Amino acid sequence: MTVTALFADRAANWARYEDVLHKAFAEKGLDVNLVRDTDAPENVDYVIYAPTGPISDFAPFTNLKAVLSLWAGVEKIEGNDSIKVPLCRMVDEGLSEGMREWVTGHILRHHLGMDAHILGQDGVWRNDVVPPLARSRTVGFLGLGELGLSCADAASKLGFQVKGWSRRLKTIEGIETFAGAEGLRDILTTSDIIVLLLPDTVETQNILDRDSLNLLPDGAFIINPGRGTLIDDSALLEALDSGKVAHATLDVFREEPLPEAHPYWAHPRVTVTPHIASETRPETASQTIAENIRRGEAGEPFIHVVDRTAGY
Amino acid sequence: MTVTALFADRAANWARYEDVLHKAFAEKGLDVNLVRDTDAPENVDYVIYAPTGPISDFAPFTNLKAVLSLWAGVEKIEGNDSIKVPLCRMVDEGLSEGMREWVTGHILRHHLGMDAHILGQDGVWRNDVVPPLARSRTVGFLGLGELGLSCADAASKLGFQVKGWSRRLKTIEGIETFAGAEGLRDILTTSDIIVLLLPDTVETQNILDRDSLNLLPDGAFIINPGRGTLIDDSALLEALDSGKVAHATLDVFREEPLPEAHPYWAHPRVTVTPHIASETRPETASQTIAENIRRGEAGEPFIHVVDRTAGY
Repeated sequence: MTVTALFADRAANWARYEDVLHKAFAEKGLDVNLVRDTDAPENVDYVIYAPTGPISDFAPFTNLKAVLSLWAGVEKIEGNDSIKVPLCRMVDEGLSEGMREWVTGHILRHHLGMDAHILGQDGVWRNDVVPPLARSRTVGFLGLGELGLSCADAASKLGFQVKGWSRRLKTIEGIETFAGAEGLRDILTTSDIIVLLLPDTVETQNILDRDSLNLLPDGAFIINPGRGTLIDDSALLEALDSGKVAHATLDVFREEPLPEAHPYWAHPRVTVTPHIASETRPETASQTIAENIRRGEAGEPFIHVVDRTAGY
Repeated sequence: MTVTALFADRAANWARYEDVLHKAFAEKGLDVNLVRDTDAPENVDYVIYAPTGPISDFAPFTNLKAVLSLWAGVEKIEGNDSIKVPLCRMVDEGLSEGMREWVTGHILRHHLGMDAHILGQDGVWRNDVVPPLARSRTVGFLGLGELGLSCADAASKLGFQVKGWSRRLKTIEGIETFAGAEGLRDILTTSDIIVLLLPDTVETQNILDRDSLNLLPDGAFIINPGRGTLIDDSALLEALDSGKVAHATLDVFREEPLPEAHPYWAHPRVTVTPHIASETRPETASQTIAENIRRGEAGEPFIHVVDRTAGY
């Protein structure tokens, strides 16, 4: 039986997804009518969804079986009350690999003090400072979901002392773990480099504010590939100006694209990257979408279903 | 019985080594008279040697038991015919760890295209290019000694396709290995990023010359924390100018400090770092020195003895 799937992302992504989705469907033996728009929403079985696409009201999709997100983060949709069916987030191997590479690269960049060399090719040979070894540096990860764990594991394998904080305490080999308000204080006071990989929830908003930034060791580094809302931007700018925070590398922002006039762009202690730390890769993401359609048609439970009471 | 060890490195390093050497000797129960100079070379049992120190003629040390190098590279001393006793090179855990961190950091820097962000904070949000994943990039290591292996292993753990070349073929899990002239051609034609960690020998000098640089894929990256003599500098500058090589990060040079007027400093596709990729760390290096003195006094074979016929 043919199922109908509506591709609801911006037009520019259609070209990236059309072929690889068809390929993934074929590999699973699925007969899918993949459309970009429809006059008969009642005939749509699955919406392949991105917040940048055209759909926000799901009420017309009266026979919908699931909403399959192309994004790992679901904070822009999980509170949408017009969704009455399972909402599945994207879990994409490529996403996790890309994030691990980006985070590890920027941890090492700060650890090694690379910027001084990249920006300072002035002909002066300064070899008097030996940087510390990774074994004497602590990297603290806020957020131990799939992405946080993958990054923490890579840092640990490189020899860093790794600490991790999550809402509920987890036990993970090679990582000293913390939870709760007291745990947050412990990890912030002892981490030379802080990596933010938390979801955007009521509890995590502004988790780095004036008070928590003040807990950091002097000259700490902050890396945020998580969510823009995790940081109180004014408090971070103050901490950068005072030198409390030596540098912040920020990939996500409250407003994206980050406005040209935003002080982050011009700040000498900030590196802005344009939400590129990790992106869903069409080839691997299409396999996750196809697997959930296969499960839906076979009457099996969906994978990666969002627990909409927890917010992620 | 008291043994006499002469510390033959430049004066500036005495302050870094004096205490930690005494500590390492004490930990092994050794009674060592550690001196910075002597009027009685015939009483010296061990010379703790660096090429930057005052000693080059070992003939006066008529009762010497071993020369213990503070440097991993021994090309400045291994041809010294006045040495009639075992020459031991430095193997320092800190050296290998520091090298792994520096090399992995610069591999990821090039892989992720970080420089565009570090140098280009111009307020323009360019998020249209998703970099490839490590799994679709090949990193080729020339040199599979202790340092090369440690770096290759780290790159492999991060997901890169890793190839390695050495004079004699080695079999290493997770790494596709090559040897000889034909193998060199294979690894050069297929590596997006080349890392040089070979010793300086007659065979390795100018291993990257005009012919071998031409074998690289267009837009390859070169990282040289090995030896300055491995590269034909004129040929590399040509390859950089033509765009054949996208970027070179160079930590070692034929002349160090690299002269201020050298074209590498001003070249937009070159990053010069001042021989900092890895340095011997006094704390860990002193343990290697102490262990060899303990062995010498106990009549046990020295560790890390240089095979002076092979040149490393």
